[in-house]
Parts: sequence; structure tokens; C-alpha cells
Amino acid sequence: MKLFIASDHAGFDLKAALLKRAAELKVTLTDLGPTSDASVDYPDYADLLSKTLVDHESKSGSTDTLGVLICGSGVGVSIAANRHPGIRAVLAESPEVARLGREHNHANVLCLGSRIVSTDKAVEILKSFLQANPDPGERHLRRIEKLGKKPG
Amino acid sequence: MKLFIASDHAGFDLKAALLKRAAELKVTLTDLGPTSDASVDYPDYADLLSKTLVDHESKSGSTDTLGVLICGSGVGVSIAANRHPGIRAVLAESPEVARLGREHNHANVLCLGSRIVSTDKAVEILKSFLQANPDPGERHLRRIEKLGKKPG
Repeated sequence: MKLFIASDHAGFDLKAALLKRAAELKVTLTDLGPTSDASVDYPDYADLLSKTLVDHESKSGSTDTLGVLICGSGVGVSIAANRHPGIRAVLAESPEVARLGREHNHANVLCLGSRIVSTDKAVEILKSFLQANPDPGERHLRRIEKLGKKPG
Repeated sequence: MKLFIASDHAGFDLKAALLKRAAELKVTLTDLGPTSDASVDYPDYADLLSKTLVDHESKSGSTDTLGVLICGSGVGVSIAANRHPGIRAVLAESPEVARLGREHNHANVLCLGSRIVSTDKAVEILKSFLQANPDPGERHLRRIEKLGKKPG
């Protein structure tokens, strides 16, 4: 499993901690930045990861690459990522919400709050996200198709 | 304070429970549906509430009207609502995330998961959301302005 990961300054330390635990998570983590905890704007990194993930899916035809975004609460990156029609981002404080987001909404990005969850909790939530399988039920697919259309 | 509220079928019972507690919450709740727990698609009700809230803000010039959206996990409605450039939706499992979403991201919609939180917990989270004040700090405003632009 391949994962892109990005954060803002508030999420920088948790991003670094998750990068160190990639082997345990059995994933290849590609760090899209930032490279320090100097102040940045969360929409910039959420947009970078969202565009990178959608481009990767489009070029590879693969949907088994996912994303992780981190800011202080997880809220800012989750709003910014969900502005992109090809992204379905779940903000999770618990493994259960991460699992349901992946199963029912086919979430392709997990958002975490560095002020909300410890590193161990973040790993537990990320494992739940990675181990869940998108439910192919027709009702889920119909609703997900609606999420890909321009709202109006 | 005025609140619009909507759900899908899975969130119908929690919506009904919150409507009964409007007096305790000291809010006027306007129910946008559905009117039964028959199966519906969460993007339809998230779109309805999002459009209604943005129209209301545009016509009244007021930003003190907020929204509440409920589905089973809260994930589906949070993705759908955040597709709308004028909506900043926070999915919260805790009062802290609701508060931070309101303070730092000026969230105007709170998303709740009926399978995740009890009615009492939902009330606690909603109170935290309503009592928080948007932080007018320049860095927050700069980031929120970026959320209002077309992602590209």
C-alpha cells in the first residue's frame, strides 16, 4: 500500500512520527511536506496532496493509493481536501469513524488532528483506515457518484 | 441563534431528539428533512442544507445562522457539505474538535454521526460548537479565504 502524507506546521511532528512508523504500518509513505515546522497555510498542503493523489489515480488507474493529512484539529485540512471532487476525506478521532469512512464513503484521505490524538492513537486510527475495505454495495456507489458531481 | 438541521435516514432519530431539545440549546431549529426514516441519499440532504444556508447568508447578510447535518458516521454529509465553497463543515466526535472548527476555521456546519455519539454527547458537542467564537486573527482569515477559492 502506498500513502501520500502532508501536514501544516501544527501537524509536522505527528507527520514525522508516522513516517518513522511506516514499516510497522506496512506502507510506503511519500512525504509531500512541509520540511520544517515553520508556519504555513493548511489549504496549500491539503491542495498539494489532493492534486497529487488525483493525478496519481488518473495516471496509474489504481485506487489503492491513499492520503493522510494532518493539522492541529484536522478540520482545516478536511475542509480543503473535500473541495476537490476526486477526494473523499474523513476526519477521524476514532478507529470506528475511519473504518466507516473507508467502507461506506470509500474515503481516500484520512485527516488527523495533532492536538486531538496521540501518536499511538493516530497509528491505531490509520491502521483501521488501511485495513477497511470499500463496501461495493449499490447504494454506497450511487451516493459516492453524487459526491463526484458539481454541487448545485 | 438560528440553526438549519437535516439528516439522512440513519440520522433521523438523532435529528428528532435534537429538535426536542431546542429550548435547552437556546436555538431556533429549522428542520429541512427528511420527515421519516425511509432510505435517502446523504448527499441530497447535505446539498439542500448547504444551499439553504448559503442563500440565507447571502440574503440576510448575517453569518450567525449555522447548520447541523447527521448521517450514520457523519462522514458522508461532511464530504458533501464541504463540496460547497461557502460551507465549512466540521465532523466532530468531541466538543474540542467542534470548538476548534468554529474558532480557527469559522465552521458554519457541524456534522454528527448517529452511530458514533449518543444524544447527550451530541448535545454536548453542539453546545460547544454554538458557544465558540470565530477567532478573527489575520492568519485564520487568510486561510479561510483560501478555502473559498476554487481548488486548482
